Amino acid sequence: MNVKKLLLNLQLALITGLLYVSASVAAEPEQPVAIAIHGGAGTISKALMTPEQEKAYHAKLKQALRAGYRVLTRGGSSVEAVQASIIVMEDSPLFNAGKGAVYSSEGDNQLDASIMRGDTLNAGAVTGVRRVKNPITLAAKVMSHSKHVMLSGSGAEDFARLQGLKPVEPGYFYSERRWQQLQKIKALEKESPRPPKLGLLELQSDDASLKSVSTNSQPQWPDDDKFGTVGAVALDSKGVLAAGTSTGGMTNKKFGRIGDSPIIGAGTYADNNACAVSATGHGEYFIRAAVAHDICARVLYKGIPLQQSADEVIQQKLVKMNAAGGVVALSKQGDPVFSFNSTGMYRGYIDKTGKVYTAIFSD
Amino acid sequence: MNVKKLLLNLQLALITGLLYVSASVAAEPEQPVAIAIHGGAGTISKALMTPEQEKAYHAKLKQALRAGYRVLTRGGSSVEAVQASIIVMEDSPLFNAGKGAVYSSEGDNQLDASIMRGDTLNAGAVTGVRRVKNPITLAAKVMSHSKHVMLSGSGAEDFARLQGLKPVEPGYFYSERRWQQLQKIKALEKESPRPPKLGLLELQSDDASLKSVSTNSQPQWPDDDKFGTVGAVALDSKGVLAAGTSTGGMTNKKFGRIGDSPIIGAGTYADNNACAVSATGHGEYFIRAAVAHDICARVLYKGIPLQQSADEVIQQKLVKMNAAGGVVALSKQGDPVFSFNSTGMYRGYIDKTGKVYTAIFSD
Repeated sequence: MNVKKLLLNLQLALITGLLYVSASVAAEPEQPVAIAIHGGAGTISKALMTPEQEKAYHAKLKQALRAGYRVLTRGGSSVEAVQASIIVMEDSPLFNAGKGAVYSSEGDNQLDASIMRGDTLNAGAVTGVRRVKNPITLAAKVMSHSKHVMLSGSGAEDFARLQGLKPVEPGYFYSERRWQQLQKIKALEKESPRPPKLGLLELQSDDASLKSVSTNSQPQWPDDDKFGTVGAVALDSKGVLAAGTSTGGMTNKKFGRIGDSPIIGAGTYADNNACAVSATGHGEYFIRAAVAHDICARVLYKGIPLQQSADEVIQQKLVKMNAAGGVVALSKQGDPVFSFNSTGMYRGYIDKTGKVYTAIFSD
Repeated sequence: MNVKKLLLNLQLALITGLLYVSASVAAEPEQPVAIAIHGGAGTISKALMTPEQEKAYHAKLKQALRAGYRVLTRGGSSVEAVQASIIVMEDSPLFNAGKGAVYSSEGDNQLDASIMRGDTLNAGAVTGVRRVKNPITLAAKVMSHSKHVMLSGSGAEDFARLQGLKPVEPGYFYSERRWQQLQKIKALEKESPRPPKLGLLELQSDDASLKSVSTNSQPQWPDDDKFGTVGAVALDSKGVLAAGTSTGGMTNKKFGRIGDSPIIGAGTYADNNACAVSATGHGEYFIRAAVAHDICARVLYKGIPLQQSADEVIQQKLVKMNAAGGVVALSKQGDPVFSFNSTGMYRGYIDKTGKVYTAIFSD
């Protein structure tokens, strides 16, 4: 009898335990996680790209994706995952962000970044920082450790130091490839100055020159016309979307020019009710079209699918404005979306099923 | 017979002439013009405002409105009208923009402005300029004379000089009232520093202190809690909408903080298909909510009236975020709209019928 009672109690305890465990699981169901990234969109020439270069880009994109995905599968937040992926790309000389940033007209590197989370709409951004190794980390610190959204220039670097980010030497960002890009543009500026009465020499030279450089002088890299920027979007196991973007801006940029990457609503936006978006392209147009927010707004207010919304903005609105670029986006269900109107965009995702995908050209 | 023929010909000529004139008029009908402005929203205490102060604000708002309206009735563009109205407010010490700008933590004045036109979606913005008398003029020059949208700091001032804008002496922006606001906040910062381990002293002091200052020390001005910013929206006789915003930012601002005023999509947006919006309020929230673009997006994609759209964003979305402020907006038909969730907003319009309206408190 006692043994029977004991067994009964043990059975009851086991059932209760199992019920408790399954109740816990039901209360906090395993949400799908996903991440998608880009490493810049623009004119990427397949003819000029060597198999080694192509391989290097695919490998780095996969490394960035896995860094972010690892955070997500271990229960980390989408904000942390976005940072982890972007840091891999910032630390690589392959992309125009962090280590591989292009040079400004002054011969230094002026970096921009922004990050946003879709549950609270909290956001952080920095522009014009010169000594910060990972601008995306600083943007995240602005979001989490200040009541401001956007900090700029030397003030942003003061904040970085207060936050314990050790400044790197300016030489950290040196790369022969980027330096030569600047020298070529500056040489072209001297050779064919515009009529001074226009007063626009300083402003209208960079893009056109950039094009001439890569057309006339057979660049060693297949993407010198690329608008360089890296970005990531992620959905974590708590259902929170996040988006982040980081860039070195435009080669030979002047006048403290700010592009779309650090602008919440233009280069970056995340709203749990709609989607997460990171953009790359001709920044001025992306600001004017409020690209990242507009894609979310169309999903939210028109009730259309994310792919359609991204295509309306990138393939129609921006094409009408004669603006090149693209976006990577993630729906609130975690489905990755790409849209770009240029010949290529470095991109990839790890989706809800764990499938890993990377690509460069439109195909 | 000859006389009869002559008369007939004259009659025919007259009729043809009249037909031609009326055809011309029909081809280019007289479009209604309208303008609306704000001079900042926030806690404006009716009890503390003297009749003289109230009169001064109404008079300056009317002067600003008339300056813009005059441009419109003479066939000028909405971009010119927005500038004309904002310049009147920038040149007045009554508002936190231009001449009346508040002081940064460094004891100088760091000014922001932006402007946008609704037909081409072209835009211009400047942030952190210290020597520019009328930042709205510089923003307009960035829009019309550069291929960039946003310029910052000393680079933006280099551009100003190239454009022939003579820098003012820093003393131009001196005002005892603003200087005392900074000194009081700095004194409070010293008296009650936050625990250093938080590392947030520099960041969390300004707003709270500002409140304490005006609560504890009986300010001479009824609006020391006001978020200072001026803005204008206009519709010209060609049917083009424009919006502009200008500000001195936050008293005691640090780290090169950038608020919503120079951010296209946050503080300023204009789209001929939707509306023109200029915002004023707690800038960080206005950036995160992409206020100006969101109001236009709701009109465009949800098909709701502008007043409803502005109220959804200001009275619902921002209130949920615990964010104070407001907007002035103009529909594509030229109907002015105000929405604010604070006790007051300096505001006014001259509508399509020529009616002049100015107000300060909610009523």
